[in-house]
Amino acid sequence: MRKATVHRLPMSHPGDVSALARLIDQGRVRADEIVAVLGKTEGNGGVNDFTRGYLAQSLLLLLSRHLDVDPEQLARRIPCVFSGGTEGVLSPHYLVFCRREGDAAEDRVAAASPASGDRGLAVGTAFSEPLPPEALGRRAQIDSVAAAVRCALVDAGIDDPTDVHFVQVKSPCVTAARASEAASRGKTVRATDSGRSMAYARAAGALGVAIALGEIDRDAVTEDALLSQFELYSSRASISSGVEVDCNEVIVLGNARGWAGPLRVAHRAMNDALDIGAIHGVLGELGVDAAPQVSTTDAERLACVLVKCEPDRCGAVRSHRHTMLDDTDINAQRHIRGAVGGLIAGVLGDPRIFVSGGAEHQGPDGGGLIAVVAAC
Amino acid sequence: MRKATVHRLPMSHPGDVSALARLIDQGRVRADEIVAVLGKTEGNGGVNDFTRGYLAQSLLLLLSRHLDVDPEQLARRIPCVFSGGTEGVLSPHYLVFCRREGDAAEDRVAAASPASGDRGLAVGTAFSEPLPPEALGRRAQIDSVAAAVRCALVDAGIDDPTDVHFVQVKSPCVTAARASEAASRGKTVRATDSGRSMAYARAAGALGVAIALGEIDRDAVTEDALLSQFELYSSRASISSGVEVDCNEVIVLGNARGWAGPLRVAHRAMNDALDIGAIHGVLGELGVDAAPQVSTTDAERLACVLVKCEPDRCGAVRSHRHTMLDDTDINAQRHIRGAVGGLIAGVLGDPRIFVSGGAEHQGPDGGGLIAVVAAC
Amino acid sequence: MRKATVHRLPMSHPGDVSALARLIDQGRVRADEIVAVLGKTEGNGGVNDFTRGYLAQSLLLLLSRHLDVDPEQLARRIPCVFSGGTEGVLSPHYLVFCRREGDAAEDRVAAASPASGDRGLAVGTAFSEPLPPEALGRRAQIDSVAAAVRCALVDAGIDDPTDVHFVQVKSPCVTAARASEAASRGKTVRATDSGRSMAYARAAGALGVAIALGEIDRDAVTEDALLSQFELYSSRASISSGVEVDCNEVIVLGNARGWAGPLRVAHRAMNDALDIGAIHGVLGELGVDAAPQVSTTDAERLACVLVKCEPDRCGAVRSHRHTMLDDTDINAQRHIRGAVGGLIAGVLGDPRIFVSGGAEHQGPDGGGLIAVVAAC
Amino acid sequence: MRKATVHRLPMSHPGDVSALARLIDQGRVRADEIVAVLGKTEGNGGVNDFTRGYLAQSLLLLLSRHLDVDPEQLARRIPCVFSGGTEGVLSPHYLVFCRREGDAAEDRVAAASPASGDRGLAVGTAFSEPLPPEALGRRAQIDSVAAAVRCALVDAGIDDPTDVHFVQVKSPCVTAARASEAASRGKTVRATDSGRSMAYARAAGALGVAIALGEIDRDAVTEDALLSQFELYSSRASISSGVEVDCNEVIVLGNARGWAGPLRVAHRAMNDALDIGAIHGVLGELGVDAAPQVSTTDAERLACVLVKCEPDRCGAVRSHRHTMLDDTDINAQRHIRGAVGGLIAGVLGDPRIFVSGGAEHQGPDGGGLIAVVAAC
Repeated sequence: MRKATVHRLPMSHPGDVSALARLIDQGRVRADEIVAVLGKTEGNGGVNDFTRGYLAQSLLLLLSRHLDVDPEQLARRIPCVFSGGTEGVLSPHYLVFCRREGDAAEDRVAAASPASGDRGLAVGTAFSEPLPPEALGRRAQIDSVAAAVRCALVDAGIDDPTDVHFVQVKSPCVTAARASEAASRGKTVRATDSGRSMAYARAAGALGVAIALGEIDRDAVTEDALLSQFELYSSRASISSGVEVDCNEVIVLGNARGWAGPLRVAHRAMNDALDIGAIHGVLGELGVDAAPQVSTTDAERLACVLVKCEPDRCGAVRSHRHTMLDDTDINAQRHIRGAVGGLIAGVLGDPRIFVSGGAEHQGPDGGGLIAVVAAC
Repeated sequence: MRKATVHRLPMSHPGDVSALARLIDQGRVRADEIVAVLGKTEGNGGVNDFTRGYLAQSLLLLLSRHLDVDPEQLARRIPCVFSGGTEGVLSPHYLVFCRREGDAAEDRVAAASPASGDRGLAVGTAFSEPLPPEALGRRAQIDSVAAAVRCALVDAGIDDPTDVHFVQVKSPCVTAARASEAASRGKTVRATDSGRSMAYARAAGALGVAIALGEIDRDAVTEDALLSQFELYSSRASISSGVEVDCNEVIVLGNARGWAGPLRVAHRAMNDALDIGAIHGVLGELGVDAAPQVSTTDAERLACVLVKCEPDRCGAVRSHRHTMLDDTDINAQRHIRGAVGGLIAGVLGDPRIFVSGGAEHQGPDGGGLIAVVAAC
Repeated sequence: MRKATVHRLPMSHPGDVSALARLIDQGRVRADEIVAVLGKTEGNGGVNDFTRGYLAQSLLLLLSRHLDVDPEQLARRIPCVFSGGTEGVLSPHYLVFCRREGDAAEDRVAAASPASGDRGLAVGTAFSEPLPPEALGRRAQIDSVAAAVRCALVDAGIDDPTDVHFVQVKSPCVTAARASEAASRGKTVRATDSGRSMAYARAAGALGVAIALGEIDRDAVTEDALLSQFELYSSRASISSGVEVDCNEVIVLGNARGWAGPLRVAHRAMNDALDIGAIHGVLGELGVDAAPQVSTTDAERLACVLVKCEPDRCGAVRSHRHTMLDDTDINAQRHIRGAVGGLIAGVLGDPRIFVSGGAEHQGPDGGGLIAVVAAC
Repeated sequence: MRKATVHRLPMSHPGDVSALARLIDQGRVRADEIVAVLGKTEGNGGVNDFTRGYLAQSLLLLLSRHLDVDPEQLARRIPCVFSGGTEGVLSPHYLVFCRREGDAAEDRVAAASPASGDRGLAVGTAFSEPLPPEALGRRAQIDSVAAAVRCALVDAGIDDPTDVHFVQVKSPCVTAARASEAASRGKTVRATDSGRSMAYARAAGALGVAIALGEIDRDAVTEDALLSQFELYSSRASISSGVEVDCNEVIVLGNARGWAGPLRVAHRAMNDALDIGAIHGVLGELGVDAAPQVSTTDAERLACVLVKCEPDRCGAVRSHRHTMLDDTDINAQRHIRGAVGGLIAGVLGDPRIFVSGGAEHQGPDGGGLIAVVAAC
């Protein structure tokens, strides 16, 4: 039996990894058990958000010291996906996913636990081959992501894709330099505008996940569907796109046999930014009640909350005009993260929520999705 | 019997008063019945937010045409209080409060309505004498606001202050010009910094309301308590401070005898930005259920939602660090409005919420308050 | 002989037209002499900048009272073009262009003035027919603008297009509603994205001006050239695009026979954001020296300064990386206006400069243009 | 003879120190020669600007690898002062100050250079003892800075304070934690508001420099003068205040005997944000002409440009209203850096300028100062 654990850690600034350092020093986390890190940093979440790179550098340095491996090499082994923007009540934090071979005693406890059934939280990761810039936002990326997700399922020991509840992908994006390099080889990129290019990469990643998880048939997805047929989506995909990677990095969370421990994951699509029912739904599936707020006792059972959301592109929420898309002062993604984060934090009584924008084809258009890991 | 009505109207931009114009043209609103307007405009909510002035000019011009009264005169008769900032899902809208003498037929219907009991929504307004700048944030302003609130209660025919559920005050603020004028008379102002001065004015206004409503004894309030003893607060005061007024303008909402119609108002203090229980509480008092969201049918009963909130000054929400107060890019009040607005909109299923920041002494520190008017 | 005058007026906020009201009350400006207004308001200059509409409403109301003409009618007679964004040292102001038939005495003085030669500042305006949304950013708009510019030249009595030094155009833009209306007629618009659509409209306007002024041959301009062949440009065109108009509004400034008075206009292309040589060039042509700063005496001769600029789309200024285009916190146009405004204000010793962004095909790519009106 | 060199290096993001790494790898810079680093990073320049910490971490790691010294220790030996905010045309860059013992051959060349006279650019650094929070913004900090400046002068071998042209100081600031610690010892801090506390620390630092350089007599400076008597200032002090230091770090630049090489430094006070004369003045002193722009050849002689500036607190520049201080969307310091940076970049034809805001008592109020190092 393997066992996955999640540590939700605070930071006082994006270079502060002292909470993890302490856990390692105390022996509560072993550096070589860490398989992935997700985090919410306090930047603006846009192209010029360097809090993600700062945290990545800080974390990799810490692990490098403990593992005696070069930081660059570690970056190709441990997916680190950070979302900038802690708008409103959101609290900067990072989630350290560890896995270890369970010892016999633990296995017995797990087996005896009536609540845990015969499945536990499973975590798997994978890295695709490097993607050339002309592949982004095209069939080649869709297929690459789908293949990488399948590898991560194998890594997690998940046989049945319906056991997967959350897939985080970080894909490369087109930069001016990469577009030039492609042009020198006679290739064209799907979009040169950096924002548009990242949106295409997220779209392709989302539909790649949907195909790998069997949510959508591969034949139903054309390149033209990207950023256009929004009725095609995955309810379990969370995609980011960034300059710092050259391949698709994948983290899957599921519930699977062969994994011990009390943790379970569940998810729900969110139909729009006001879909409080989805929040109650995912909590209910994990046996957590919110009436109207999760109790302090139950809140302690929650290991992490992962959310994707998007300002409704029609300019209205439930037919009432919103102003997110035309705001020259505050980026639309910052608006929506703050609002959806405020809602979920209110239901949970806890503002430590990983909320990421850019949810194209990740849940219903204008909405998004929520996944929660909890001890059951 | 008098009858108060509330019209919640959309606008496509801050100069768009076509929705009210239409109601007047259709005879559904009579211009001379309008006694107050509250609104949420899509500016930044700060000193350089001119969407409030633009909407005020547009509304007063419209009413001026219908009433044949000069706009400046109207401004001294009809309190117009606008809060800038429709962060996140919040939808720009304005609330037109009307009152009329009920006709006999209506009175009979009202009397016969089993749900309405013998009380109805009561609306009263008042304007204090002009306040010199040296009075702001001092005892003189506290007493002036308290007196104006008492006048507004008389105007509303409310005998018992416990029947009041919401008091909106707009107070003057100190400008450089006004401070100089005071200095020329040998007077000093409480604070010269414009942000600080407005905070003092809001604090004095809030405690003035608290005294008038009997929430706090006048002797318990000293000038030193302002912006310092935050345990002193009103749960029913919503104060703004602005350069456009030279006196305290007051709107009170309560439930009182002598008022017909189905509308009732209720309120709750919010203990912090995650206090979803307060939202359920105020809805429950009005017989509106949220499980977890108000039904479409019930949502139509809601006439308006009025909220005050504040980023917790200790830098944390439920002991988790927030980043609102140290953000150089987005003003803290914009952050908190977006988060609290997202939470309430999620519970209501409706993003038309009047959410205002700057809640010093207006509800518990770090929290605020919520008032709702609904048809019962 | 006709005579054009320019009044550069301060405002304390975007609704403050008291400076013009005073001039009218003092008889120094006659309301019926006003032919155009340009202004720099303190909004963000983006889609959600309502300071422009607020100022327009305030000005038209003032003129409406004096001329006893409906504000909407006036809006179709007097072009009012406002640019939002007074970044850095820039000072909010508006420029009122008047023209009158010179009386005989003035004509004699003008004729006797050795500096004025036989030409004076000429001002002409024109409005095109309404443009359907599918025409925007296409050949039809280019031709419409060119035709309107020719009308404005006739209005100004300018025979030779080389006598023109500045042409301000305000064109419509595509909105979601307008795009739908076009679709219902089986027409498609050039771009649906609002930012892109406005850029196309500016591009078409600029090349329309270039054709009308003989800077570029009509045959050299294809629809594909818009936002692509940036070597095609006008050095005298300043184009804005906005939802508030449905036709092209044109203001031309030139030096022409038949116009009296000391004012003259000159212009220069700016090669990039550091092109201080262009500023010295245009001043030198007007006999104004800057060594390094315009003297107080000479500064009083300057009637207005009109500038277009653009953040270099290659991401560098003189091969040094700039960060304007990737900034999620501050819009790129706000950045460039502040920088170019700071430079010109430093040379002039005066921060009252009309600086507008969005300079596609208006001066060299990455640069822009400057026009100055001065008493000679 | 010692010799100081300055390397002005580009970066593609705040964690990119590859340009310095290359110089070290090529043997053009020896890591042990580096005595100080100044830099302009692309953050917002405010409390939540983490680009400074990211660059510091990246630089110290690089040097740590080459010097085999712990990064924390290096931080106490090499002052690294970064100013966030590359508004407008400003280009992110960092300045690496090195000094070495000149070899005999170099000394002969230096001595023979007719332009260099007998003085060269001198660089000195010093660190004060740690300052308790209650000392900040008070007499104790003033004296501590003055003493540290005197140490840096000794380090630089400068006898005559009039030979100093630029002093950079980084001082600690009061944080909530530090204020509590002080309170626990029965001490109070000068200001608890973080912005105000940093302003006091900068003010005390500036007047400490002024005293050390003999610009102001110690007796003329009282604690009450800080942030109040702005006619007291240093024309050579550039002060920053930040949470990352616990003592005053000092870098002095001067021209002194015993230093070889072609570099010289000069400075000028700037009277306001439009003081282009000061820029010409400082350039002229270094034999650099700007007519109106520095030639490409001369531009190559410029090693670095260091600027302090401030939005005029009276709300106007040369009596024309500016909007920097009341802008809720863009911080005032971002506005002024963009404008002053644009002006200086235009005169120099180069946007690599270290422009820092927060210029209290550093140059005339509403203005600031400029220092330039050039090869003469």
